Amino acid sequence: MTLEYLPVLTIAGSDSSGGAGIQADLKTFTVHGCYGASVTTALTAQNTTGVQAVHGVPPDFVKQQMSSVLDDVDVKAIKTGMLFDTENTKAVAEMLKGHFNAKGHIPLVCDPVCVSTSGHVLLHPDAVDTLIDDIFPLSDLITPNKSEAELLLKQRHLPSHIASLEDMISASRRLRTLGPQAVLLKGGHCVVSLADVTNISSDDTQVIREGLLDDNANILRIHGRNETHVDSLVVDVLCTSDDRVTIFARTRLESTSTHGTGCTLSAALACQLARGTPLTEAVRLAAAHIHIGIETANPIGSGFGPLNHVHSIAPRLIAPRTKTNPYPLTSSLIRGSRVIWKEYVQHEFVVLLGKGTLPKEHFLHFIKQDYLYLKYYARAYAFLAAKSHEFAPILAAIEVVFSIVRESSMHTGYCIEWGITEDELINTPESPALTAYGAFLIDAGLQGDPMKLMVALAACLLGYGEVGLWLKEEAQAPNSWVRLEGNPYLKWIEDYSGDVYQMAVKAGLETLENRAAVDAPSLTRFTDWQDVWERCTRLEKGFWDMAMNLA
Amino acid sequence: MTLEYLPVLTIAGSDSSGGAGIQADLKTFTVHGCYGASVTTALTAQNTTGVQAVHGVPPDFVKQQMSSVLDDVDVKAIKTGMLFDTENTKAVAEMLKGHFNAKGHIPLVCDPVCVSTSGHVLLHPDAVDTLIDDIFPLSDLITPNKSEAELLLKQRHLPSHIASLEDMISASRRLRTLGPQAVLLKGGHCVVSLADVTNISSDDTQVIREGLLDDNANILRIHGRNETHVDSLVVDVLCTSDDRVTIFARTRLESTSTHGTGCTLSAALACQLARGTPLTEAVRLAAAHIHIGIETANPIGSGFGPLNHVHSIAPRLIAPRTKTNPYPLTSSLIRGSRVIWKEYVQHEFVVLLGKGTLPKEHFLHFIKQDYLYLKYYARAYAFLAAKSHEFAPILAAIEVVFSIVRESSMHTGYCIEWGITEDELINTPESPALTAYGAFLIDAGLQGDPMKLMVALAACLLGYGEVGLWLKEEAQAPNSWVRLEGNPYLKWIEDYSGDVYQMAVKAGLETLENRAAVDAPSLTRFTDWQDVWERCTRLEKGFWDMAMNLA
Repeated sequence: MTLEYLPVLTIAGSDSSGGAGIQADLKTFTVHGCYGASVTTALTAQNTTGVQAVHGVPPDFVKQQMSSVLDDVDVKAIKTGMLFDTENTKAVAEMLKGHFNAKGHIPLVCDPVCVSTSGHVLLHPDAVDTLIDDIFPLSDLITPNKSEAELLLKQRHLPSHIASLEDMISASRRLRTLGPQAVLLKGGHCVVSLADVTNISSDDTQVIREGLLDDNANILRIHGRNETHVDSLVVDVLCTSDDRVTIFARTRLESTSTHGTGCTLSAALACQLARGTPLTEAVRLAAAHIHIGIETANPIGSGFGPLNHVHSIAPRLIAPRTKTNPYPLTSSLIRGSRVIWKEYVQHEFVVLLGKGTLPKEHFLHFIKQDYLYLKYYARAYAFLAAKSHEFAPILAAIEVVFSIVRESSMHTGYCIEWGITEDELINTPESPALTAYGAFLIDAGLQGDPMKLMVALAACLLGYGEVGLWLKEEAQAPNSWVRLEGNPYLKWIEDYSGDVYQMAVKAGLETLENRAAVDAPSLTRFTDWQDVWERCTRLEKGFWDMAMNLA
Repeated sequence: MTLEYLPVLTIAGSDSSGGAGIQADLKTFTVHGCYGASVTTALTAQNTTGVQAVHGVPPDFVKQQMSSVLDDVDVKAIKTGMLFDTENTKAVAEMLKGHFNAKGHIPLVCDPVCVSTSGHVLLHPDAVDTLIDDIFPLSDLITPNKSEAELLLKQRHLPSHIASLEDMISASRRLRTLGPQAVLLKGGHCVVSLADVTNISSDDTQVIREGLLDDNANILRIHGRNETHVDSLVVDVLCTSDDRVTIFARTRLESTSTHGTGCTLSAALACQLARGTPLTEAVRLAAAHIHIGIETANPIGSGFGPLNHVHSIAPRLIAPRTKTNPYPLTSSLIRGSRVIWKEYVQHEFVVLLGKGTLPKEHFLHFIKQDYLYLKYYARAYAFLAAKSHEFAPILAAIEVVFSIVRESSMHTGYCIEWGITEDELINTPESPALTAYGAFLIDAGLQGDPMKLMVALAACLLGYGEVGLWLKEEAQAPNSWVRLEGNPYLKWIEDYSGDVYQMAVKAGLETLENRAAVDAPSLTRFTDWQDVWERCTRLEKGFWDMAMNLA
């Protein structure tokens, strides 16, 4: 991930089956690119059919875990889940207070877990008061579901029955009076219709309908044969510190993959708040994350299975750039074509050229064809400029065209030196190896985006740079096989190992790597790059084969 | 992830700070697209500076967690980490044996965690025999580091001193005699040079040098100013069931971000084995995963921080296709351009056309310009064919060209009906709104890859489909504002709402969505698609504005 690996802490129970609890939290932190730490308040032996056993963690050990984490790791947000009992709830509250006092407040999301979906009591009833008294006042947000909201309100002898959207709205306001900055009342267990949502109209109520079917999208509904009952909605109600209410409406999904949705939601919220996302936007993003998690879940276990925690990530094929590996894309390309790359950059032609024993006719055949190749190469960079729509890449590509034209004068220079007229040079017929390579570049430009063309162009740019550096390095070894003095091809070696050309190599590397870093390729796209790179590497080798065979 | 969400189980200790233990395992399972379940053997309060306290979990509760998971979740591979003490080790062995006997063997990776990096004893010494006797024989692979290997060998009175690569090789073979199918002896704490690796030559020893600097890549080394000491390597030694040895060599990284590398490695191995990756390849991939994790880590905590667990994932912006959301990309595009999309598909032009009250001159102005537009549109699809390199998409694009040519005959038909000669139609001057749109399509084709062009082409294809369906649906409502009977534009409405056109809409949706599903876009690329889509939507609206203004 290119995002910073921000530490986020969950204080909750452990779910051995991995669908809920700290397991769901850690998975959710991970897919949000956040670094998860966890304080375990209780272990459960559970699976998708229910909770089989619970093992409470002693309050002192809860405190010890909290110290270990908070004293050392710069946590950016915290969520609490199942706190188990009064003692552990008190221990957590005491440690949080101490931490906030010492180091300042950080976002705290309290998921007031009391009862599992399967009906298992997850918070001892006498701990509910402690939760309200000690944790709620520290919380930026609490995220009760319908049963939890009713239980919390009843505990404080407040009207608690929730049967309609209006009940949800007033309950959310009432819950806020218990201490938290904001309340997100989750409506998974409330039946709400589109009409209910439409009828809500009040100056201090906003409706976010993004989770409903798109407006003006009959094509999606009809061609998708989408028979979701638009009249059965799930509605979450957010009441913020100004007592304003935002309603998040989305289509209800029929699914048994709902184990751990509450944990996952509050974990996603903690990640958003850690990144500084404003609360309403954080809820919108987190709710959408959970919706897709349910929608894309495959069955796991025989009961209420987990949602899909990993729908929002894709494999990243090219590692981030680092000091020790600044060119991960180029490194992958070279590695993926290792054999043919070596046959190219250490070609017999190159070896003989380094020794100075390459027969002149081979070199001249090469230099004439390479002269013609440079025309394609210049055109391909001009094509790259035409395919770009910012001044910087247009300029960069056109500057390369200039360099290529300059490079071609080295070729004419050699020819003049060795008795070939400019006329003869210009009228040299193209060899098939050259036409294949030149036309392939233009075709890559036609078919793909600028990056595909840049990868195609890189095999020549980088390969000649490699040949130059290799010969230069080898020449420095004692008793080297490379001969510089008196080598008729010295200028060629100096040109490609020299600073001017190597600066172009470095610029090419930077451009490729920066592009891949900001526009990480999918496997399909990377495979295409690898294929184009390997084709060009092979065409480069073919070019020197041609020179050696004079064909 | 497009990978199946395969369940994998870790049986290990909990690390509150999140760098090691079940936390590292769950993170690693997640980034591999695997579904993590966890059985906790002990809780630790620890951070990057060391282990502050340990709370053992009772053996019966360990067993209970294992039953809960294994009875319900179809686990595809298991890893064990810190097993804490003799009783818990016995409990784990008993449950594993029972499970393998009942349901068959699945890959088991045993990370024989004995001592933490910070020197804390993580496995009671008397449990080492139990680990060897009861867990090793069930294991497909054990993954000791140097200290653990020495401790295990010493326990069985075998030569245990490991100081060289040769010692590592013989130790790995000796460890295999203790029962496991294979041994991966990790060399993070052994000093090995490139010469040591080069000197190893034996028929039954293979060296995998992939983690070293690339061969023939002077450009990467020199331009990367890569001063890594190539002479200090990290070498892992794998001894497989045929007693053959594979050596994995990589450059040593100077880093303090090494907390939990062993846990992460064995977790990555369990994921690979769950997916059926052959062992040697699994080790190669897992070792590379850990190497990059250390290389790309940012400091967390004040001591030995965690590696980067999330380097191998990128955000996935378009959700996987499902029955309830079969068109997630198109849905995002429409949502992202909601306002302008509505102004397009419910344009005044469309409304008047549906009512049958659109003045004839507006319709004729439109139909003449649309006729000219269809030439650009046909050319753009022909361009798409030219940009494709498989027969199927070439054919698909060319079939659309045919349909467009057919569609144009509707235009000539209207014109003839209303007294406009074909000559007049063909010689109509292009309006700027038309030229802008037509040329924009061709430019999108020039600049980008086929997908970018397809997104550009979709705004017209899908928008007209939407207009057709909307008018058709509205016409069916009682007392509809849409008038079909006697509507001079009935044929237009019937054409775009009819089966032939709607089949093209459906085919277009499927192509777009399938492409996005196999070639998930990065944020940069998706933003580009969204931009092109919105530009075309705006140009479509402009087209109808032009018709209304007769300009």
